[in-house]
Amino acid sequence: MLLPQINDPQALKSLSVEELATLADEIRRFLIEKLSVTGGHLASNLGVVELTLALHFCYDSPRDKMIYDVGHQAYVHKILTGRKDRFDTLRKHDGLCGFVKRAESEHDVWEAGHSSTSLSAAMGMALARDLKGEDNKVIAIIGDGALTGGMAFEALNHIGHEKRKLMVILNDNEMSIAPNVGAMHNYLSKIRSDRHYLRAKDEVEGLLRKIPAIGGRLAKTAERVKDSLKYMMVPGVLFEELGFTYLGPVDGHDLEKLIEVFHQADNVAGPVMVHVLTTKGKGYKPAEADSYKWHGISPYKIESGQVLQAVGNPMYTEVFGKTLIELGHQDKRLIAVTPAMPGGSGLFPFAKEFPDRMIDVGIAEQHAATLCAALALEGMKPVFAVYSTFMQRAYDQIVHDICRHNANVMFAIDRAGFVGADGETHQGVYDIAFMRHIPNMVMMMPKDENELRHMMKTALEYNDGPIAYRYARTNGTGVAMDAELRVLPIGSWERLRPGDEYAILACGPMVQVAEEAAEVLKREGIQVGVVNARFLKPLDSSMLLDLARANTGMIVLEEASQAGSLGSAVLEFYAEHEIYDTRVHLMGVPDLFVEHGSIKEQRQETGLTVEAVCGRIKSMITLSTYSYKTTSSS
Amino acid sequence: MLLPQINDPQALKSLSVEELATLADEIRRFLIEKLSVTGGHLASNLGVVELTLALHFCYDSPRDKMIYDVGHQAYVHKILTGRKDRFDTLRKHDGLCGFVKRAESEHDVWEAGHSSTSLSAAMGMALARDLKGEDNKVIAIIGDGALTGGMAFEALNHIGHEKRKLMVILNDNEMSIAPNVGAMHNYLSKIRSDRHYLRAKDEVEGLLRKIPAIGGRLAKTAERVKDSLKYMMVPGVLFEELGFTYLGPVDGHDLEKLIEVFHQADNVAGPVMVHVLTTKGKGYKPAEADSYKWHGISPYKIESGQVLQAVGNPMYTEVFGKTLIELGHQDKRLIAVTPAMPGGSGLFPFAKEFPDRMIDVGIAEQHAATLCAALALEGMKPVFAVYSTFMQRAYDQIVHDICRHNANVMFAIDRAGFVGADGETHQGVYDIAFMRHIPNMVMMMPKDENELRHMMKTALEYNDGPIAYRYARTNGTGVAMDAELRVLPIGSWERLRPGDEYAILACGPMVQVAEEAAEVLKREGIQVGVVNARFLKPLDSSMLLDLARANTGMIVLEEASQAGSLGSAVLEFYAEHEIYDTRVHLMGVPDLFVEHGSIKEQRQETGLTVEAVCGRIKSMITLSTYSYKTTSSS
Repeated sequence: MLLPQINDPQALKSLSVEELATLADEIRRFLIEKLSVTGGHLASNLGVVELTLALHFCYDSPRDKMIYDVGHQAYVHKILTGRKDRFDTLRKHDGLCGFVKRAESEHDVWEAGHSSTSLSAAMGMALARDLKGEDNKVIAIIGDGALTGGMAFEALNHIGHEKRKLMVILNDNEMSIAPNVGAMHNYLSKIRSDRHYLRAKDEVEGLLRKIPAIGGRLAKTAERVKDSLKYMMVPGVLFEELGFTYLGPVDGHDLEKLIEVFHQADNVAGPVMVHVLTTKGKGYKPAEADSYKWHGISPYKIESGQVLQAVGNPMYTEVFGKTLIELGHQDKRLIAVTPAMPGGSGLFPFAKEFPDRMIDVGIAEQHAATLCAALALEGMKPVFAVYSTFMQRAYDQIVHDICRHNANVMFAIDRAGFVGADGETHQGVYDIAFMRHIPNMVMMMPKDENELRHMMKTALEYNDGPIAYRYARTNGTGVAMDAELRVLPIGSWERLRPGDEYAILACGPMVQVAEEAAEVLKREGIQVGVVNARFLKPLDSSMLLDLARANTGMIVLEEASQAGSLGSAVLEFYAEHEIYDTRVHLMGVPDLFVEHGSIKEQRQETGLTVEAVCGRIKSMITLSTYSYKTTSSS
Repeated sequence: MLLPQINDPQALKSLSVEELATLADEIRRFLIEKLSVTGGHLASNLGVVELTLALHFCYDSPRDKMIYDVGHQAYVHKILTGRKDRFDTLRKHDGLCGFVKRAESEHDVWEAGHSSTSLSAAMGMALARDLKGEDNKVIAIIGDGALTGGMAFEALNHIGHEKRKLMVILNDNEMSIAPNVGAMHNYLSKIRSDRHYLRAKDEVEGLLRKIPAIGGRLAKTAERVKDSLKYMMVPGVLFEELGFTYLGPVDGHDLEKLIEVFHQADNVAGPVMVHVLTTKGKGYKPAEADSYKWHGISPYKIESGQVLQAVGNPMYTEVFGKTLIELGHQDKRLIAVTPAMPGGSGLFPFAKEFPDRMIDVGIAEQHAATLCAALALEGMKPVFAVYSTFMQRAYDQIVHDICRHNANVMFAIDRAGFVGADGETHQGVYDIAFMRHIPNMVMMMPKDENELRHMMKTALEYNDGPIAYRYARTNGTGVAMDAELRVLPIGSWERLRPGDEYAILACGPMVQVAEEAAEVLKREGIQVGVVNARFLKPLDSSMLLDLARANTGMIVLEEASQAGSLGSAVLEFYAEHEIYDTRVHLMGVPDLFVEHGSIKEQRQETGLTVEAVCGRIKSMITLSTYSYKTTSSS
């Protein structure tokens, strides 16, 4: 066994190519075994075993900067840089992060959970290097899917212009998370499928010599033809046109070829793109056969590839997917738009039912949002199905193209709230804060999966502008489902439980937490009201005024940034109505990035639990009594 | 005169090409005359006179959809669609909008003030058309600068893949607002400069016939060469690779050629890109000579081209530019990054002084932000100089790449608050609301240009993460400038005027409004305190607690979205500290998009004036007396 001795990438330098290949096998076994217990991003990491080995063999990390785009394919990098013994804790609370993490190792130079940032990062690091007069290498490793994100193109455009020395490794595995779409994908396929390209290059030289000498104007043309032909025979003309030297395509599982192409790349003066072909799931049959399913995977049985999934109530995502089909039958104008997440968003069944009305634009949240605006202006009813965290990419388009046009776009915001093991790059806790202040926006969040269905119906029937429903990355509550879909009055809340002086206003899964807290308190003789604040914008004015009239102290409980979300909105409402005798306590996500762990742990960490709510209510009562006493005695 | 008779684009259909050319001359004179009084986007509109005429001659608006990217080059379109008589009101309150505006005309089908949205809009409209079974044309007109914005590439990638019929007109004038940068620009230059391309295409056919027949393996290669040669000789291979049929380049001032190429384009089945070369400022010498200066221009004298600028206090932008040079000398790590706004952001002097430390990335806010993050992680001190409204494009990168990394990036947020004539697409009223909730962020706003300088120094000396200063698109107050730059304590506010029971907390130019209001009230015997809330995050806790102890009622006055900005932050602070006896009134921008006009008019419209503040304070006093009475009598 070689792997036990590898505690630092320097240990690779003395290995032969054969030994590296042996090590690759050992790493694959390691990954397959470890992830069968923890779950994680298996397929993409199996795809980059040789690539990562070759990089650490040829370059000197951390002096040379290795920048992994969407750092979930950095497991091999973690194994080689002294973290293999921590793999049992992968994606667990206080354990190894599933993404690149600067705090974990000096070899982790760039963190990312969102796609397409690596080229900008590489450009920044190359620029800083040159300004500081240093000479380290800068290497970005980016997948073909991530390359379609707009900011990657912005970076290509800048890199190609500046001509600084840096290397982009295009890790082409024909798949982002979903099967790739887009013209760039088609272009790369053409290169992949035409292996004649490289051979032809040499042959062209011979052919050119056979073209007879021609005089006059035609001679000049012939010269141009000769110049351009050699160039044309190189694949990757698109990248060459943008200022890169293109090398490849290279078999990404052939260590010798990888090492050779890196040496070639080192001799190029400006930016170089190395096109590497890899197979996702390489070396583990079930993952090779269905790399989409095996992208991010739960624990599984190694021999059979059977995935061990906890049985539970239906996920919000599933309910969304199924209900969308019902609505699709009701309204022909309904069209679903996803930025490369057809599976994660639960849209595969809809796509099967309505292939013409399912648009996957690739990793392109900005384009997706503006596309929706235009579809809506032309009378369609687009649903922009997107994770809360990735929707951040479309903030400007939501303001400028959707809300300013007051376009009838529906937002299906999945993974709203904590997301668990994916951690801080993926938390869906900002969307209320970044959407609530935009004029014309309507926002909802259901307390259970049954209410989600009514919200979807409500959104479809709403024709006065953009409307969003956000839902958790969790199982639903298992509530019975209504057969008939209802339209909810815009801005209407639901009083679930009457209270005396105190009430909890909550949204989404926090409604259940509020109910449980109220139940606990009831047993202690404290009667606390619970309100399902299912509209985040507009608020339910009459209920808020009612609550204030009852002189109620209240808690606003939400799994969202405490700054700027529902709690803020309630405070603003009372300030606007000059109501100052109602005590509003905010319980939301505090001003910090919440790391990976289970959703339960994340709620505990941020005090969004039944216990914390009970404690807060009790301290409100104490404080109120205390204030009363001091006021009386003064 | 032909122009007086043109009240509808249908009127063009009966004109000859010669008459169209005459009309073009009349339109140019019209534009030059009208804009000499109103100001506006002159150069870009002079550049598209023939292009717009040819489009309306060949197509049927509004059935055929004409989508102008960044609608400031739609003046000619407005003239041709019945709005020429309103040009005296251009960019004025209740007057003609400087951008495309759906409410103005059925011919305005897509609004935009931000760049690079037109291709997504075109794709959406083409998709809707096909789903509805209609057959209208969809035409996007996009500049070469806008093409470098990431979302334009996302759209190209989608369009090229979907192959739906639509036309993209690449209006190539070698300039966005700033001279273009980037590899795409270099690529287009190559096409422009090599006019042999088109001629060569025919000649190549002849040449190919001269290649002798060759047997065996080489024959196959020869076949490949033949196939690819024709293709290679067409310019625009980059666009062809992405799935477009490329036509051009065409002289954008030659009506006959334009009409011809549009007919050609109509015969193409899928997406077609027509590359049109235009000259910004065409037909007006001063604008042709310096189209950068004449992009957006103040009123001017027609004969001399002398621009009539109001003399006033130095603009914040200028002070920023000058101070940055001072700081650049103090700290070699300082580097300025701009997304295509070197002039507008006041960076030209810095660029002249430190050419190596001035990075213009083109229209690419996302890349710019992430580039800054990487520069900072490598020990540089980047300043991201950006307009508030355009920074919206980088929201995700600010969260994910800058704040999550806690990178030492400085934000110079220009045009914060109302922007005047550019109107609703450009208002800088959301940045507090969309940045305040992001962990690690520090935000400031100066009450005058002298304080801006100290804030810049403060930001440079701050090494604990991202820090922003935002400033208005206005002249400063004319305050005396301190020679020495000072570091402000993070989170420190400034009490400018003592008060009894009432205080106004204000930031930026609203501090002056607050001071004036306090002065007016003082004359009426009401003593109101004024606080310069120069840190928007973190707040000045001790001053807020002091204010609460004095049982002060207060107004938070800000030229920013009332939802989620400073006022919210103050409310959250008091809720968190369980302080409920302080009455906080919010005066910010209400929940609507504020249209074009002067900044003064925009403040009046939204109630951010001395009068409104005085009125609010008085009603607070009345209310307080009233409450007191009712409380006493109950």
